[in-house]
Amino acid sequence: MTRPIRVAQLALTDHARPVTTTVDAIDETGRSVPTPIAGEHPLTLYLDRRELVTLMTLGAAPEHLALGWLRNQRLVESIDELAAVQVDWETGSVAITSRSLRDEGTALWARSGREAALDATLGRRTVTTGCGQGTVYGDLMQSLDTIRLPQDARVSQASVYAVMEQVRRHESIYKIAGAVHGCALCTNPRDGSMPTILRFVEDVGRHNAVDAIAGWMWLQGIGGADTIFYTTGRLTSEMVIKCAQMGIPVLMSRSGLTGMGHELAARIGITMIGRCQGRHYLLFTGRERFVDAPPAP
Amino acid sequence: MTRPIRVAQLALTDHARPVTTTVDAIDETGRSVPTPIAGEHPLTLYLDRRELVTLMTLGAAPEHLALGWLRNQRLVESIDELAAVQVDWETGSVAITSRSLRDEGTALWARSGREAALDATLGRRTVTTGCGQGTVYGDLMQSLDTIRLPQDARVSQASVYAVMEQVRRHESIYKIAGAVHGCALCTNPRDGSMPTILRFVEDVGRHNAVDAIAGWMWLQGIGGADTIFYTTGRLTSEMVIKCAQMGIPVLMSRSGLTGMGHELAARIGITMIGRCQGRHYLLFTGRERFVDAPPAP
Repeated sequence: MTRPIRVAQLALTDHARPVTTTVDAIDETGRSVPTPIAGEHPLTLYLDRRELVTLMTLGAAPEHLALGWLRNQRLVESIDELAAVQVDWETGSVAITSRSLRDEGTALWARSGREAALDATLGRRTVTTGCGQGTVYGDLMQSLDTIRLPQDARVSQASVYAVMEQVRRHESIYKIAGAVHGCALCTNPRDGSMPTILRFVEDVGRHNAVDAIAGWMWLQGIGGADTIFYTTGRLTSEMVIKCAQMGIPVLMSRSGLTGMGHELAARIGITMIGRCQGRHYLLFTGRERFVDAPPAP
Repeated sequence: MTRPIRVAQLALTDHARPVTTTVDAIDETGRSVPTPIAGEHPLTLYLDRRELVTLMTLGAAPEHLALGWLRNQRLVESIDELAAVQVDWETGSVAITSRSLRDEGTALWARSGREAALDATLGRRTVTTGCGQGTVYGDLMQSLDTIRLPQDARVSQASVYAVMEQVRRHESIYKIAGAVHGCALCTNPRDGSMPTILRFVEDVGRHNAVDAIAGWMWLQGIGGADTIFYTTGRLTSEMVIKCAQMGIPVLMSRSGLTGMGHELAARIGITMIGRCQGRHYLLFTGRERFVDAPPAP
């Protein structure tokens, strides 16, 4: 099933930050209310000492976030190219070292002409970055047509309910402090048994949470084919694109979706289920892959 | 009070898009449910024919969004430098023309050496852009210390409730389709009368909604001193920074806040009120400017 093929050989720190702090607030009755709030910290990514980006993050999974960001931005093709990911909160930075730099004292990027490619990619990002939409538009839209998702992934009403129930029971920062989005990667067993949570990540930006899951999958060597992705956030174009890149054929959300999220999911062949709350959900795309649904009344 | 000082002389299109479309979904009982969903469209900004950025937007206020983005990115200092903002959905673009280009056939930026400044700004953005966090980190953090907000802006429990009630009664895309964030700019009268909504904007990204309000304020010549800003979204560092840039001393949110949002609001002198739901709210910062609060029990 969705077992790790191999765990990448990578020197990783394990520097998660405390995720909440408590501040004092005054409520409508004039009472002082100690209130837990979610952390938000700048984390600057360096690849072979080259500064790439500053992400604002909860800091719960900074190493996976850095890896997943590199992966989803397609700045590094294989995790095997990387030797180390080292987070230092003193300086708010994460140093990612490629194997070339470590082994030969020369940056992979400089040697292979990928410095130019990186320049081009970072340069393009300048004009394709949207406020609140992350950094993936221009280029990725073009690459979507090359993505082929498995069209034999089935999902049933029972498995949808199982994912919802597992997420509901999961301990979360959101329950304590709000102001974060959660993402869960779940199994989607082919033998009819119920999905379970493989990985659950929360962050102040939903894009960070999905990137941190992408990084974890990369590290574990887990593909997306036999998984279901759940998010508390909205299914916008960027969420659909990122999940497609991760090879995940089934998307669920507690929230709604946008027109472009809907259009892309239909085009790529993603089964998309929104408004998952209580015993309610709405199946938006991929009904031909939804099994054991009740007959239309 | 918060009356327009002057409306900028600017040639504007008025090309709002239809904000929702209806798609067919299947619910948990197998029933087909026509479901309105929010639009999401790429809009590429060009300043004097130079490509700047692609924003994913609902498209309800594209001209104001373009203006506010330029303003909040501090790429244009005064709206008087601009001659035209023209949205064309056929090409998904908005052409912003500076007065220099229109009047003299030469781009302001090229003539005045600001082409280089623009290069530097766009270049810096490359390394300071966060997924889901918009494009404002690095630079803006440094500029925060130069922002002086009026410290005489008072807010009362009655005015907090008045804002909440006005927003609750406002017609919104959110009620129809979800998947959007709303922002409202409200008056904050000094004579003790109740706040009213000056402008209400929804968008698929909360950063877009706040930018669209910034653009509208710019166009109307309205400063932030006598206003209250309400958002359905979380009060992250970036939301606090943008509102500080707009000169708004009071922030309210239906949602929670992050640690950095809290820290910045306290440092800049913003009165921040979160978790506004029903008759409940939490005053996080600026209690010395909160008047008529009930005495502590």
